[in-house]
Amino acid sequence: MPVFRPESLRRISEEIFIAYGATPEEARLVSEFLVKANLCGHDSHGVIRVIQYVKAIEKGILRPGAKIETTKETPSTALLNGNWGFGQVVAKKAMELAIEKAKECSVSVVCAYNLYHIGRLADYTMLAAESDMIGVAMVNSTPTVAPYGGREAILSTAPISYAFPKGREHMLVLDIATSMCAEGKIRVSLHKGEKIPEGYIIDKYGNPSTNPADLYDGGALLPLGGDLAGHKGFGLGLVVEVMTGILANAKCAYEVGKKGNGVFFEAINVKDFMPIEEFKDRIDALIRRIKSSKLRPGFKEILLPGEPELRAEMKRRVEGINLPERTWIEIRRIAEKKNISITELINEK
Amino acid sequence: MPVFRPESLRRISEEIFIAYGATPEEARLVSEFLVKANLCGHDSHGVIRVIQYVKAIEKGILRPGAKIETTKETPSTALLNGNWGFGQVVAKKAMELAIEKAKECSVSVVCAYNLYHIGRLADYTMLAAESDMIGVAMVNSTPTVAPYGGREAILSTAPISYAFPKGREHMLVLDIATSMCAEGKIRVSLHKGEKIPEGYIIDKYGNPSTNPADLYDGGALLPLGGDLAGHKGFGLGLVVEVMTGILANAKCAYEVGKKGNGVFFEAINVKDFMPIEEFKDRIDALIRRIKSSKLRPGFKEILLPGEPELRAEMKRRVEGINLPERTWIEIRRIAEKKNISITELINEK
Repeated sequence: MPVFRPESLRRISEEIFIAYGATPEEARLVSEFLVKANLCGHDSHGVIRVIQYVKAIEKGILRPGAKIETTKETPSTALLNGNWGFGQVVAKKAMELAIEKAKECSVSVVCAYNLYHIGRLADYTMLAAESDMIGVAMVNSTPTVAPYGGREAILSTAPISYAFPKGREHMLVLDIATSMCAEGKIRVSLHKGEKIPEGYIIDKYGNPSTNPADLYDGGALLPLGGDLAGHKGFGLGLVVEVMTGILANAKCAYEVGKKGNGVFFEAINVKDFMPIEEFKDRIDALIRRIKSSKLRPGFKEILLPGEPELRAEMKRRVEGINLPERTWIEIRRIAEKKNISITELINEK
Repeated sequence: MPVFRPESLRRISEEIFIAYGATPEEARLVSEFLVKANLCGHDSHGVIRVIQYVKAIEKGILRPGAKIETTKETPSTALLNGNWGFGQVVAKKAMELAIEKAKECSVSVVCAYNLYHIGRLADYTMLAAESDMIGVAMVNSTPTVAPYGGREAILSTAPISYAFPKGREHMLVLDIATSMCAEGKIRVSLHKGEKIPEGYIIDKYGNPSTNPADLYDGGALLPLGGDLAGHKGFGLGLVVEVMTGILANAKCAYEVGKKGNGVFFEAINVKDFMPIEEFKDRIDALIRRIKSSKLRPGFKEILLPGEPELRAEMKRRVEGINLPERTWIEIRRIAEKKNISITELINEK
């Protein structure tokens, strides 16, 4: 597998998007977020998406340079129509607006519809956390998850993210699908030819399966909680569908013509509840107490939400980002088609 | 087991609380909420709590008639000090305040600390839903849940609730602990002398256990998600701790002197995003599509969040509420101690 410096991947991705009609600002932002996902270890949300985005631009589903319109607005809320622009561009704007509104109004909600894939939710909730606010995000997409007790994939993986202002410890950032796992995880096992543990998916008959191919042959992901408590993950997934598919006007996963992401963002200004330094000190104390817990047999340490990503990033910033041969060949092919001089942009390690 | 009309239980509970110093309004509200929990099938949150509350009043932990103070306030937020009043009284006031604020400000957050047990979260989020708003609630309490990978009970069951304005279908109300199950479920199995399925708890050594007694002998409840995805329930539990233990100033579960509940309430005014009738129609469509899903083998239907409670209530309003002999004896003993004439209040069926 070829290894790249993050900077090289970012520049290649940027040039490709510019060649496909993105403004320099759009190209830079989208590429930064994709490479950030690779750095954090979430390769399924990394530059592999360049291939998908370019196809979407060619099909007219994703429209570079789209103008964001405000459909509805109050001092503390807004509903944005992304007009099928880059998800990252619309979503960043939405969270920045939420942060601005929460500065004046203490708490704000900004929703967005008609936008393409936004990538990792944590990228947006962390913007709020860096502004000394609590960031909340929910997003829906196309259907892959069955309701508890059902065998039809009519819900999305419906992720939820929370990020909190950080003190001296690392930032507490939760970013989880409300299904047993994200779809990307099953796809990776499929590509590697590996079985998956029982409990992640069902086949088209509704039976538990360890064969990742069954997901793509009429099967479904299971909601968080499994047989014992899957009604809980199912319930959380429904909440996300309502907040994004309905409140954000982006259609529910099951609806005909559902495309792209529906976005619900919220910012809560901590200072209207307590001094920010006190809040941060108390988050630090919580983190330290949890990490010092006695362990269960078989565990070496307790990892807090956001910690695996931080570790991957520190490692990959030094060692570079590995891309699967197939991904790299496809990206290079796209670049060459647009006469982008890869060798000038690249700094292979 | 003796069977009671809800009205009888409410009146007995009311008289007891008045005898223990509650104002008539407090006694009525708390008793209504306790009986409502019985009606909904959540007996662990029902009139069995009269016994616990009376003990807490005798110990001075719960203070009937306490004045609620506003510690911090903006047009859209408030932080309330309950001064150790009845949880239900403080929490209802908090959600009503959130609803009032969201009428003006579109979205609001009201937190509360220094209050006793508030009962079921759904009782409060439904108040928002009945006002055509989305209600959100989180609460923490004393520690019973281990972090993912840990074996110490240092987190609370950290429930989350969402309720949505209803159209023609029943109200969509989620109210779930972010642990594999609520503590009350294990306690019921203990009292019945039954084993529990593997996956709910660990013993004091961190090993999976099917013996409910192990929870009360240094064990812990597991976070939602089990071995495959317990990091997700753990992450959600941490979010609740931050929102209630820190933002709401109510101490985290692990902290010395943690008592009562910490409360985070939010209300989102739907009309600032779309006409309420359109919202309700779309919720109805979502409900109908989900309920019509093809089923997995072994399932007879898909139950939506809030549906089991609604069915229990319809049944118990007709058939009455069964109380375990032991619970009834204890409640009667308390009433007799205060010279409350049970026979006048009772209407046994």
